Order: sequence, then structure tokens, then C-alpha cells
Amino acid sequence: MQNNSYTVAVLGAGNIGSAVIARLLELENEIVDINLKKVLVSDISKDRDVDKKLLTDNFSDILDDQSIDLVIEVLGGVDPGKEYIKSLLEGGKAVITANKDIIADCGSELVQLAQENNTCLYFEAAVAAGIPVLKPLIESLRGESLKRVTGIINGTSNYILSSMEEGSSYTDALNTAQDLGYAEPDPTNDVEGVDAKFKAMILSMICFGANPTPENLYTEGISTITKEDFDWANRLNKTIKLVAVIDNENEGFNARVHPVLIDTKHPLAAIRGSLNAVVVEGENINQLVFSGPGAGAAPTASAIIGDVLSACHQLSSDQSNWYPLRSQKFENKEFKNVSSSWFVRLSVKDEPGVLASIAGTFGENNVSIESVIQEGRGDQAELVLVTHEAPEEDLQNSINQISSLDSVASVTSTLRVYS
Amino acid sequence: MQNNSYTVAVLGAGNIGSAVIARLLELENEIVDINLKKVLVSDISKDRDVDKKLLTDNFSDILDDQSIDLVIEVLGGVDPGKEYIKSLLEGGKAVITANKDIIADCGSELVQLAQENNTCLYFEAAVAAGIPVLKPLIESLRGESLKRVTGIINGTSNYILSSMEEGSSYTDALNTAQDLGYAEPDPTNDVEGVDAKFKAMILSMICFGANPTPENLYTEGISTITKEDFDWANRLNKTIKLVAVIDNENEGFNARVHPVLIDTKHPLAAIRGSLNAVVVEGENINQLVFSGPGAGAAPTASAIIGDVLSACHQLSSDQSNWYPLRSQKFENKEFKNVSSSWFVRLSVKDEPGVLASIAGTFGENNVSIESVIQEGRGDQAELVLVTHEAPEEDLQNSINQISSLDSVASVTSTLRVYS
Repeated sequence: MQNNSYTVAVLGAGNIGSAVIARLLELENEIVDINLKKVLVSDISKDRDVDKKLLTDNFSDILDDQSIDLVIEVLGGVDPGKEYIKSLLEGGKAVITANKDIIADCGSELVQLAQENNTCLYFEAAVAAGIPVLKPLIESLRGESLKRVTGIINGTSNYILSSMEEGSSYTDALNTAQDLGYAEPDPTNDVEGVDAKFKAMILSMICFGANPTPENLYTEGISTITKEDFDWANRLNKTIKLVAVIDNENEGFNARVHPVLIDTKHPLAAIRGSLNAVVVEGENINQLVFSGPGAGAAPTASAIIGDVLSACHQLSSDQSNWYPLRSQKFENKEFKNVSSSWFVRLSVKDEPGVLASIAGTFGENNVSIESVIQEGRGDQAELVLVTHEAPEEDLQNSINQISSLDSVASVTSTLRVYS
Repeated sequence: MQNNSYTVAVLGAGNIGSAVIARLLELENEIVDINLKKVLVSDISKDRDVDKKLLTDNFSDILDDQSIDLVIEVLGGVDPGKEYIKSLLEGGKAVITANKDIIADCGSELVQLAQENNTCLYFEAAVAAGIPVLKPLIESLRGESLKRVTGIINGTSNYILSSMEEGSSYTDALNTAQDLGYAEPDPTNDVEGVDAKFKAMILSMICFGANPTPENLYTEGISTITKEDFDWANRLNKTIKLVAVIDNENEGFNARVHPVLIDTKHPLAAIRGSLNAVVVEGENINQLVFSGPGAGAAPTASAIIGDVLSACHQLSSDQSNWYPLRSQKFENKEFKNVSSSWFVRLSVKDEPGVLASIAGTFGENNVSIESVIQEGRGDQAELVLVTHEAPEEDLQNSINQISSLDSVASVTSTLRVYS
């Protein structure tokens, strides 16, 4: 870092912003000298832990200040951050953001803008907060042809599932998560997989050069998972995790978010509480796992500070920090054509021929059955099946037809099996 | 990467060198254009998979070739690689090496040389081969004050211990490791912790700015671990791993390599076979885990290719790739003052007063006992103790005195407990 002093502005002084400002002010001088010049807030008069002289409510004060080298965006939401970031990059300023919504929305466009303006854009905190995983993917692993990336990238839902693994009901686990501040009062974004979807879009761009839209990235949450599902998982030496799976092999590219039954020996099964993890698979590297804290102000600020150092190092050269983005190798594959093995629980009438009609329906849809267990008798009878791998469409059609069979009271649950 | 073409030489064309050369030749042009110009070998006449026109047995052909931007050293051993790397850096060429011996020997000196000459030095493959962990530690985590770094960084010993966990004897596991090519005919370096020691020296420099010498880095291997130790580990819900532990807190800096009893729920317990893993602990990041393949030509070449891309990106600036190296925060702490909890198995005479005299000896050395189990009767009696944390010196003194008690036939094993 040849030039030892860099002038920085921060957009936003909320929870994350305050943590970042505190870390910036205490950055050891042995690494780099940071001059924090301005902090953009909506209300200057509000009491904060920030020197009042630094505050401004006018973005132009930052955009037009030629002495500012680097701007950290921690406003949250897409607007007005997106336009701010574009203007800053066009003005040649380095930008760091933790904003997954913006990067999911137009990440490749912003990367291109940074490249065109020979400046830096970093967003390590946008996926898996405190885990330094994007930089290794973008830089160290850029030469690897990746096959599949699987992530536990939403801490809230992982906390809830971990509590359920230990015996909690979904409602109790969610309530505790809300009490601890892990879940919002309206938990939809976390428990229905929306947050994970945005992060999966970012990983799709970084790892496979693909840009799935929110609409074509299949997303299913955890709010229908029950204690009984965990009891069954336990009997099968498995647990249940909400994962983003992104793969790109000969049959095509697909990204999706949904809960899976996963073997207890798989590295992701050991990721408990609000931790995150990303598993990266490729021919030469086999399987890499990165895990750590996926949420919270301190880990997020840690990732941002890492980006600040990278930007300061990079700023003295007159090029962008970006290696050429990957380009998509295989066509998009629709989710209906993605194959997986399903775990299916059915509430059935305990009468002769039930299994035959169910197995027949699967067979007509070209789905073969790996194992069947029947439990209970009479009205309480339950049939639990695990299928071999089959395309989503065939599995879905099978289930639709099975649910209308006279002998089937209800389809109690379906879960994809991760392998 | 503004300049799209880089001219490269490789020193060595052995197992790793050949894999690197193959990867260089197939690097996608979309990333960077590599012109492989020379390969240094000791015998030009030997048949190889490399174009004969590229071969040279004269290092000066590479050092003096002004068109060569970047040199990859994969010779192995300290000499002559060390002097070659120095000359290349002094000549302003970027250097990539996978050579842990050289980096352990004089890593900080070489980093300084790279900085002084505004050039690059990368060695991702020197620790944990295919896992991109050094770059995140050097760059993304440079702003973090780290507390402890613990690694399973020798794949051979981890393969042997994993086999023993599944019931193999040490000898059978070692033989299989040798048959599979994981262990050398003389396995000393791997099983006695020497290889892990060198990697621990590199991690000490990167994570804590410390430069322990081979002599003061306590090193103990796995050759005395028995099936019975694993049986006991299993009873205690633990397993046994060979780890490098490097910590730096108020009491001081220490790095060491030895086997530990570790809880089965700890992330390192799940690292099986020849995998490696590095656990990084710090206040803001809590605990990060990086795991993946720790040996083999393909993963090692993968790390080297990652370094090549980083170097090509960096080469167009006129500064070194290095962020300021960390400086050591706390004094060195001698191993005798490092505290840990010990698991101790004793073969004892089954007679009144045995436990009293053993407990008394521990007490005189200020070591308190957490739990005791006595098994068997008569000559077969075995006493198994777990102590509370105490300094190494007090534990060692206790064991020495206990082994000379009349009632103690032998100290069957001692293992540190990781927590």
C-alpha cells in the first residue's frame, strides 16, 4: 500500500454502519491510515456515536468531494443505494457495499461499471457476512471450473432448524429467534428463503457467470417443516437444512433454494445455530468448505474492513480490482428438469392395495422407489417413501396424482434428499 | 488484468510441476493469456510430457530472460530453490512457490525482498494445498486481531488417525497410507509432525507476525497412539487428531504440534481422511473454518494457478502484492508454560491407597483432577484421569513423579485435551 492515507465516506450509520465506523477509527496505523471524512445520514440532528462534524444529509457532499477515495454503502434496501453506487463508480471512487439486494439486482452491471472506470467494487459482506468466501471464489478459484456450490446462507432459518433438531417446535424456535434478535418481527424473508435467494443470485454470478432472475430461481422456505419431519430425519441418520444449491454441469445451469434432508456426516449437517457455510465443488479441488458467522454487526463489519484493506491496496494501481467475470458455460436448465430424490410422507387408509396404487402412480411417471416404510394401522396409517432420483416435474406430477387417490388421506410432507 | 499476456517459467517438472504445466497450458484465454517460455529441469534428455524446446538445465536462462514476468518454483527442498527465489525477486520477477520448507525457513525475509523490489511473492499451496486459506488470512482478515489458529495440516497423519478411528491399528493404517501413496516409504516427516511444524511456522508468521524456530516449536507425532486410546476417546465422545495450535493472547505467543483428544462435535473432528482444515478464531469473526484437500498434485496445482492469476492481476501495478506483515503483539511463551487439560492412562496395582498417592502427586504440582475412572482388577487395573487445565511443566512433573510411584506399573498414555 504505497499511498498510506485514504479518505473514506460511509453511507448510513445504522447498526452495521456504526460498527464499521468504530472499526475504521481503530484500524491500526501499521496497516493503513484511514481518514473518515463524511457520514451520510437521513437525520443530522439525531444523537449518534459519530462526530457531528462528519455528518451530512446531502449525498452530493460525498459524490463531489474529490478527496474521497472510497465509499462504504450500508444503507440497506435497493433505493437510493443503487443509484448512489452507480454515480460513485462513474466518478471513479472505490465502493464497498454489504447490500445483497443491490448486488443480486445488478451485480454484473456494477462490476462492469467498476471495470470501465478502472475502480474498485467489493461486496464480501453481501454473502455469508463474516466468512471470507467471495474473494477466494472471485480470485483464488477463478481458474477452477466449478461444478456445484451449496450454501447454508441464511442464519435465521438455520437457527430455527437447529433448534428443531434439538426438539423445539417451529413456532417455539421462531419465537426464540425473534427474542434473540435473529429474526425480524415479520420473518418472511428469512423463513421463506427470500434472503437466501438473493445470496444465491450473487453466488450464481460469481461462480458460474449466470444471472438467474428472482422469478426463475425456485425458492421454498422452512415454515412447513414439522417436528415429525425431524423425527424421520433422525431415523434415517439425516437432518434438515435450508440450502441454496447452484450447479452447472453438462445438463445445464440451475440455482434453487429449498430445505433438504441431508446426511448427518455431510459437512453442512454440522453447521448449527446462526452459522453459515458454503461448500464449493470442482474437479481439481474436490470439495472445499468455508464456514463461520453469517450475520451480525461485528462479522459484517469484519468483512467490510477486509474489503477496505483490499481496496486501499488496489487503489494505488490504476485498474479495477476485478478479474474477468466468468461467462456462463451451459444453458439455463428449468427447475422442472432438475433431478432429485424425494422423501415423501403420506397419510393413507390401511387397506389392501394402497401401496400398489401409489407405487403404480410413481411408476407411470417414471419415478422409481428406493424404500418404503409403513407405520401405524387404521386411520393413523402412514406411508414413508424415498424415491430414486427423478426430474422435479415427474415427482410433482406423481405427488399431485397420488394426493387425489381415494386411499390417500393427505400428503403430509415432501422433502428433497441432498446427495 | 490490463496486460493480457504474461510470460512464465517453471522451476521443476516433477509430479506437481507437470500438473502445473498442464493447467497453465489449458488456462482459458478469457481469464489471462499465459506464454510458458521455459521449464528448468536437471536432466533435459529425460522423456517428459513437456515440449523439449522449453526445457533448460541452466537457471540463468530464466533469471536473465527479461521477457519472463513470473516464475513458479516447484523443485522441493530448501536448496537450490531458496537462492533461486531470492535472485528472481531481486531481479523484480514475480515468484510463486509451493515450497513450505523455504517459506518456513525464511518466509518473512522473502516477503520483505518482494516488497523492496515492488514485486509479487505468493505461496498459497505451501499450507493446506488446495484450500485457499493463506490469501484470506493475509488480505481479507488482515484487519482482525486473531486469537488462535488451529489446523489439521498434514493429510497423511489425518488419514492414519481416521483409519484408526474406524478400527485399524496404527501399523495397518500406515501400511495402507503407504500403499495409496499418501505416506512416503520413510513416513517420519508426516507421522512425527515435522511437516505440520513447517506449516505451523508459516501460519505463525502470517497470522501473528511471529517467527518461531523449528527448535522452539514443540512437536509430537502420532506414532505412539494406540487402538486403546481411540476406544477411550470414543467412550468420552471424543476423537484424536494431530493439530497445530497457534495462539496469541495476553499470556503470550506459542505454536505447537501434537495430537489432541477433541470433542466429536468440534468442526475439526469431522475432517477425515487426507483432508485438511484450518480454524481461525478472533473476536469479530468468532470462528471461521476452511477445509478441503490438503495434498495431491491437482489441489496443489489449483492453488498455484490461483496464485498465477493473482500475480498476473497484480503485475500491472508497480507495487508488491503484500499488505504490511503483522507484527508480533505478545512475547513468546515457552511451551512449558502453555496450559492444557490432560487425559492420562495409568497401569496400576489394584491396592488401597493407589488413587490417594496419585492424586497427592498431582496436587503437590498444583494440578487438579476433573475425573477419574478405574477399570479392571489385580494386575490388569487401569486408572484413567482427566485433569483440569494446568501448565505443561506442572503436568509433566506430575507424570514423571507418578511414573516412579511403587503402585504405578506404567504411564500407558498421555494426551492433551483440546477445548
